[in-house]
Amino acid sequence: MEKGNLIIGQSGGPTSVINSSLYGAIVEAKKHDEIDKVYGMLYGITGLINDQIIDLSDYSIDELELLKQTPSSILGSCRYKLTGSHNSGDYQGIKKTLTKYNIKYILYLGGNDSMDTVMKLTKFFNDTKIDCRVLGIPKTIDNDLISTDNAPGYGSAAKFIANAVSAIKADTSVYDKGRVTIVEVMGRDSGWLTAASKLASLNGSGPDLIYLPEVPFSKAKFLNDVVHAYGKNRKTLICVSEGLKNKDGEYLSIEHKNDRNNDAFGHNQLGKTAEYLAKITANELSVPVRSIEINLLQRCFSNVSSLYDINEAVLVSEYGVKKIIDGETGSMVTVIRDNGVVSCSLTKIESIANKIKEFPKEWIVDGHDVSDSFIKYAKPLIEGEYQIKYENGVIKYFKLHS
Amino acid sequence: MEKGNLIIGQSGGPTSVINSSLYGAIVEAKKHDEIDKVYGMLYGITGLINDQIIDLSDYSIDELELLKQTPSSILGSCRYKLTGSHNSGDYQGIKKTLTKYNIKYILYLGGNDSMDTVMKLTKFFNDTKIDCRVLGIPKTIDNDLISTDNAPGYGSAAKFIANAVSAIKADTSVYDKGRVTIVEVMGRDSGWLTAASKLASLNGSGPDLIYLPEVPFSKAKFLNDVVHAYGKNRKTLICVSEGLKNKDGEYLSIEHKNDRNNDAFGHNQLGKTAEYLAKITANELSVPVRSIEINLLQRCFSNVSSLYDINEAVLVSEYGVKKIIDGETGSMVTVIRDNGVVSCSLTKIESIANKIKEFPKEWIVDGHDVSDSFIKYAKPLIEGEYQIKYENGVIKYFKLHS
Repeated sequence: MEKGNLIIGQSGGPTSVINSSLYGAIVEAKKHDEIDKVYGMLYGITGLINDQIIDLSDYSIDELELLKQTPSSILGSCRYKLTGSHNSGDYQGIKKTLTKYNIKYILYLGGNDSMDTVMKLTKFFNDTKIDCRVLGIPKTIDNDLISTDNAPGYGSAAKFIANAVSAIKADTSVYDKGRVTIVEVMGRDSGWLTAASKLASLNGSGPDLIYLPEVPFSKAKFLNDVVHAYGKNRKTLICVSEGLKNKDGEYLSIEHKNDRNNDAFGHNQLGKTAEYLAKITANELSVPVRSIEINLLQRCFSNVSSLYDINEAVLVSEYGVKKIIDGETGSMVTVIRDNGVVSCSLTKIESIANKIKEFPKEWIVDGHDVSDSFIKYAKPLIEGEYQIKYENGVIKYFKLHS
Repeated sequence: MEKGNLIIGQSGGPTSVINSSLYGAIVEAKKHDEIDKVYGMLYGITGLINDQIIDLSDYSIDELELLKQTPSSILGSCRYKLTGSHNSGDYQGIKKTLTKYNIKYILYLGGNDSMDTVMKLTKFFNDTKIDCRVLGIPKTIDNDLISTDNAPGYGSAAKFIANAVSAIKADTSVYDKGRVTIVEVMGRDSGWLTAASKLASLNGSGPDLIYLPEVPFSKAKFLNDVVHAYGKNRKTLICVSEGLKNKDGEYLSIEHKNDRNNDAFGHNQLGKTAEYLAKITANELSVPVRSIEINLLQRCFSNVSSLYDINEAVLVSEYGVKKIIDGETGSMVTVIRDNGVVSCSLTKIESIANKIKEFPKEWIVDGHDVSDSFIKYAKPLIEGEYQIKYENGVIKYFKLHS
């Protein structure tokens, strides 16, 4: 294969370490003679379609180091699925851009949906004999990518959640009176993030009750659980997924929104599940209750990123660069953990794209807790602290040259 | 004065560094022969009334060091105002407890309201010739204590806000489409915390618009401001105080709650101001908008406490111990900053209790921003990072011996 250029794209929801993968790819690419320049597509695949491309080859190592502490997709992101035939606009746009920049290698960072793009690009290049390889690099806070032990982005989100829940537990325990506090955690369809609240128990600040979206929500059971928990510990802490659904599969939050008749809001956005449960609890049990959303910070408060997670995010993209040069295409890099030793492998993209890894049913305890098996699984993912560089008390972020 | 014991109480809302002041008091007290034991009152003054007292004398220095990274009041807190005559239950309970534990010195940590307790204790001891001294130690995230340059607790809350706003800015900018994001910041009646969002501009992530409770809210001006800001930068970031009020002095959040007819909720709790403004913006301007509350973490996420703030919290209580031994009573410790040099003084409690330091009107720009004078004032308060001790990826907290 002749010498060519590498391009990287970031897709889907941001994470605290998605730019660590960008770091790994750029630094590794510089080591290989097969790669001349490293480009970035702005706003994911739409940047490749529309020739919104920037050159990432000339950043200093000091600048690049800041990528490890810069959250969200520095290149911009998209939630765009390639459509149409190979002769149509999307694909022809891509072909034109690849030719213009002599791109032979594509690394695409994303989750389930983004791997659909990797799959379609692979088929396009294969069908039309375009000399370009493509690999998926995993990232998602939701940890719902299959075939990989975990996904970079999850560890840092889990670490933020564990530490935020600890802080909330400390804060809500100060007065000498009972109160139920309900904390809402992200994760629309998957309980991995909500389960991470259990990690706060590692310093004795764990929640009393945990509700994952994998378990159909029963109001009667919930109220019964709260009564019991409040009886044992009047400073009751409950963590719930934003994506809790009733037995008919309807989101509680949507039900609550209809209640509130708040039609100016986007109906597809979740949230307010904790508020809804607080309302139920106050109405039915007459106990003091408050709800708290810890919100977006779960995926972007990189001040407390997991060092393990940063290193893994770097590792998967370094591995991706090596393998793509070796001739691999049409796969996603996966993570293997074996007795604490982390390594990478490749899995064919068809078996990953658009699929979801569920939270193991056997790790859910009594419908309102998670087991020690989960703690054993997740604890190593949140370990280690990156030495964040601050200036004037504010975290420093990587900035693209304008 | 004969040898006696010191007791410390924590009162009012928790902060990230209120236990740093506890650290400073305990460590300083150990250096002085005049003080035998150091006690803590549980749940503030109510612990002194009801003989809920613990001995803090026997903790190791390693344990005590953890106080610097443990948020919220480790002794518990209260929002209790002393009532009745000096012959009544409250005061007689206090007298009994003081005698039982041979307490000669009281340090009481808190904000405006808590200083009312210091004032009343001073009068009680004076009127009834009880041989006990009392000093107030300042703490409040709101920074609204008068006679002091700033209050310990504010710097860390401000630092969290600046860093959280930076992260939100990064997160909400990733897609190639416009959106207004409205972030709600704490501070019921005072704009100090909301102004701290401006410190995110130190890394280039500052909000486009900032609304403090000191400026009566005008819907027309707000919508006009948003239109202009959105025209300049379609990824518009707005920070608002939870305590915004209309020109009649009514909280927007209460208005919104009445709208929502959500009677199960405590009407006295604020919040939902950003949600209300998002609703207005969506209805009137038809732009995509989301609201975010950064919530309790502002006052308890000690993982990112300001080192300056921790040191100041230690300093004010060390100074308090020295001065109370010297014979001082009936004052609060205040902070002076002079060309970067920090020192302490005492101010008579009568001129502090129940009073509020307002955000300087001259630092508010055009009703929707704050000036460089504020940045110059606040920047040093958020500087420096404490080396947080983690275990298994979760922050370690000080625990009281059971």
